[in-house]
Amino acid sequence: MSAHDSTAELGLPVTVPATSLFTDRYELTMLQAALRSGTADRRSVFEVFTRRLPEGRRYGVVAGTGRVLDAVENFRFDSGVLDFLSDRRIVDETTLAWLADYRFRGDIRGYPEGEVYFPGSPVLRVEGSFAEAVLLETVILSILNHDSAVAAAASRMAVAAGERPLIEMGARRTHELAAVAAARAAYVGGFASTSDLAAGFRYNIPTVGTSAHAFTLLHDSERDAFHAQVDALGGGTTLLVDTYDVAEAVKMAVEVAGPGLGAVRIDSGDLLLLAHRVREQLDGLGARGTRIVVTSDLDEYAIASLAAAPVDAYGVGTHLVTGSGHPTCSMVYKLVARADGPGQDAPLRPVAKKSMGGKASVGGRKWAARRPDAHGIAEAEVVGTGAVPPELADRQLLVELVRGGEVVGREPLEAARERHMRARAGLPLSATQLSRGEPVLPTEFMTGS
Amino acid sequence: MSAHDSTAELGLPVTVPATSLFTDRYELTMLQAALRSGTADRRSVFEVFTRRLPEGRRYGVVAGTGRVLDAVENFRFDSGVLDFLSDRRIVDETTLAWLADYRFRGDIRGYPEGEVYFPGSPVLRVEGSFAEAVLLETVILSILNHDSAVAAAASRMAVAAGERPLIEMGARRTHELAAVAAARAAYVGGFASTSDLAAGFRYNIPTVGTSAHAFTLLHDSERDAFHAQVDALGGGTTLLVDTYDVAEAVKMAVEVAGPGLGAVRIDSGDLLLLAHRVREQLDGLGARGTRIVVTSDLDEYAIASLAAAPVDAYGVGTHLVTGSGHPTCSMVYKLVARADGPGQDAPLRPVAKKSMGGKASVGGRKWAARRPDAHGIAEAEVVGTGAVPPELADRQLLVELVRGGEVVGREPLEAARERHMRARAGLPLSATQLSRGEPVLPTEFMTGS
Repeated sequence: MSAHDSTAELGLPVTVPATSLFTDRYELTMLQAALRSGTADRRSVFEVFTRRLPEGRRYGVVAGTGRVLDAVENFRFDSGVLDFLSDRRIVDETTLAWLADYRFRGDIRGYPEGEVYFPGSPVLRVEGSFAEAVLLETVILSILNHDSAVAAAASRMAVAAGERPLIEMGARRTHELAAVAAARAAYVGGFASTSDLAAGFRYNIPTVGTSAHAFTLLHDSERDAFHAQVDALGGGTTLLVDTYDVAEAVKMAVEVAGPGLGAVRIDSGDLLLLAHRVREQLDGLGARGTRIVVTSDLDEYAIASLAAAPVDAYGVGTHLVTGSGHPTCSMVYKLVARADGPGQDAPLRPVAKKSMGGKASVGGRKWAARRPDAHGIAEAEVVGTGAVPPELADRQLLVELVRGGEVVGREPLEAARERHMRARAGLPLSATQLSRGEPVLPTEFMTGS
Repeated sequence: MSAHDSTAELGLPVTVPATSLFTDRYELTMLQAALRSGTADRRSVFEVFTRRLPEGRRYGVVAGTGRVLDAVENFRFDSGVLDFLSDRRIVDETTLAWLADYRFRGDIRGYPEGEVYFPGSPVLRVEGSFAEAVLLETVILSILNHDSAVAAAASRMAVAAGERPLIEMGARRTHELAAVAAARAAYVGGFASTSDLAAGFRYNIPTVGTSAHAFTLLHDSERDAFHAQVDALGGGTTLLVDTYDVAEAVKMAVEVAGPGLGAVRIDSGDLLLLAHRVREQLDGLGARGTRIVVTSDLDEYAIASLAAAPVDAYGVGTHLVTGSGHPTCSMVYKLVARADGPGQDAPLRPVAKKSMGGKASVGGRKWAARRPDAHGIAEAEVVGTGAVPPELADRQLLVELVRGGEVVGREPLEAARERHMRARAGLPLSATQLSRGEPVLPTEFMTGS
């Protein structure tokens, strides 16, 4: 099965002939030099982690794991890519020949998607030869850094929204394919639906959407527009009521659709005030079941400030897809251990860059576990090398994702979404505070042999 | 020629079977309702503009126009997409039949890529039937909002860097395909090269890269690693000198590669101090031609602060691809005029949402021109409806991009890059200040008939 077929089967909205191109050039030049120096086959362990959470954030959310698995599976160097690398003299003939046969044959373990993480958590651990593992750095980081940033924002918004559904509407505010990944990450973080058809197509996320101001402006009157929409989409539709005068529009909306009107949407103005007024007006018109959807530049703070308002659903765009102030995580992919020579049996030696400017890392192949307190609430993220203490053995966080190059950790997106809700519920209550603070769990490092 | 073939010919690193999926669901439900109400054929003018620049920014940079043209050309509803829309009951049979024949047959004019823009500048103007034009909203905004945000950051960094080259290294900090677009936008904004192979493949942007800390840690000693790299990549390579001790590494680098060593890279620590020390050390070792590349979490301010340091090139990642604090522009796509009835001859009527919460827009089909002062420096962005004043006739900013559905505005990326340099040079000198301030040009609105 070619990479192309495999991606097509996954139903991507785009076919990805070679995720191998999503790679920084230095991965390939390092490969060439390592092939030449005889170190390319050294067994190596790379880990993905962050040194810190974005300022003030209480926890991070792992998202993108499923996309990483797709990317690894499709990381092949086909003739188009090899020709490019050859024409531009990016690598030599020996390296090209090696790349032509490439597929990842190593092992990947990681925090399962939707799990929370903290500074130092080994979110992903890639083991294989240096050559096969180093190549995956860029694409793995691209996916995890982007998707986890969006999921973290989504999770905070979901906390703020409580039981009210959140609609992802950010496609227009980010790259068209980042938007698809963002809708996916938002779903993991707790959003209920998306406006993005590509995300519905690719990931089966429920899609929603009815009309914009342009539709009202297209018609000779707002009433004409409402009639047109109700005629086409039924009385259960959502009418946009803020093109001209909200109170007049609400009155007209109920006249046109009847008291069974599905919802009205408010996209501008003082949402707190308008929500109260519109609710009162709708109730007065007998439209007690008509919902109120608000969608104007919301972030988790704006959502929280509307908690007491009669709002039924929130649509969120810009602040979601840009990670609410933190559009990327600072995850890195670091060599933490490697063998002194070739072969599977050579012992692993921990390695780490020397500390300078806060860029130190902790050497050695790591496990991680979340230690609960007496009430079952998490009290520490424990990250260690060597043997896992018996009391933490069944609290381990890393799961098997790829074994000998075969993906074994694929799961439905719904599983990641449910896992996130459980993981968040297992954190100290302060995790749900939107205010700035320290990570809700300390990370404890245990060094073993 | 199918959309699929056409994209493949463009050499995309991914084939895009249908950019039509990069669409918010409400575009299609509006289409369905307009088809039913008989308003779908009304001639309509949509404009892309921003109400404001990101806080403190002096100018915006139009980027992504070339990608918009690709997206419009490939905006087709193939059977896979139609099946999806049908299965999920997103639109009715009439609408599906209409979509099956869809291709954009209207006209698009816009600011050429690389041009600067200001609040209210009509960056893109799409004219056609309501139905054909409304569908393009999401994908056009996705592209322009993302790419222009990156280009604006790139432009500020290029100003700060002066004659020194900038290397785009942000792929790992953003979605893997957003990264390709970001490298492209950075090139428009003034960057010289990218680490991202996909951007080299797709857009022919020069790629660079040699090695990471992992390569040094893989070897039994730093000296072994330097030997391996120089052996494989030649003495003109860039050696990374901050894995352990910088001074020792620099000494060793010159011993291994000779005084003809291409460059050393410093990726951590006090860059100002280190650059001075390393330069002095290199000169003392006779390596006067060896360049110093710095790459540690730089933004335009950090670059500016290194202006007096002996730095030869800057590598920039996170802050570039996240728009240096502003990861998206706030461009919107608004219906500004439409005919009262079907047909090409029905007169256009300006339309606009009523002002509320700062979301008002100026109705009417607009032109734009940049008025120079007596010294030839721009003094105002003039945006108007109706006739263009004769003195501004040859200062107009909008150019033809699509005529009757055919792309006529495609150009080499180099043209956009050069245009940006010219456009920036034509602004008042305060445009080059990194400090927060007002847009360097006021936008003047002229209403005509």
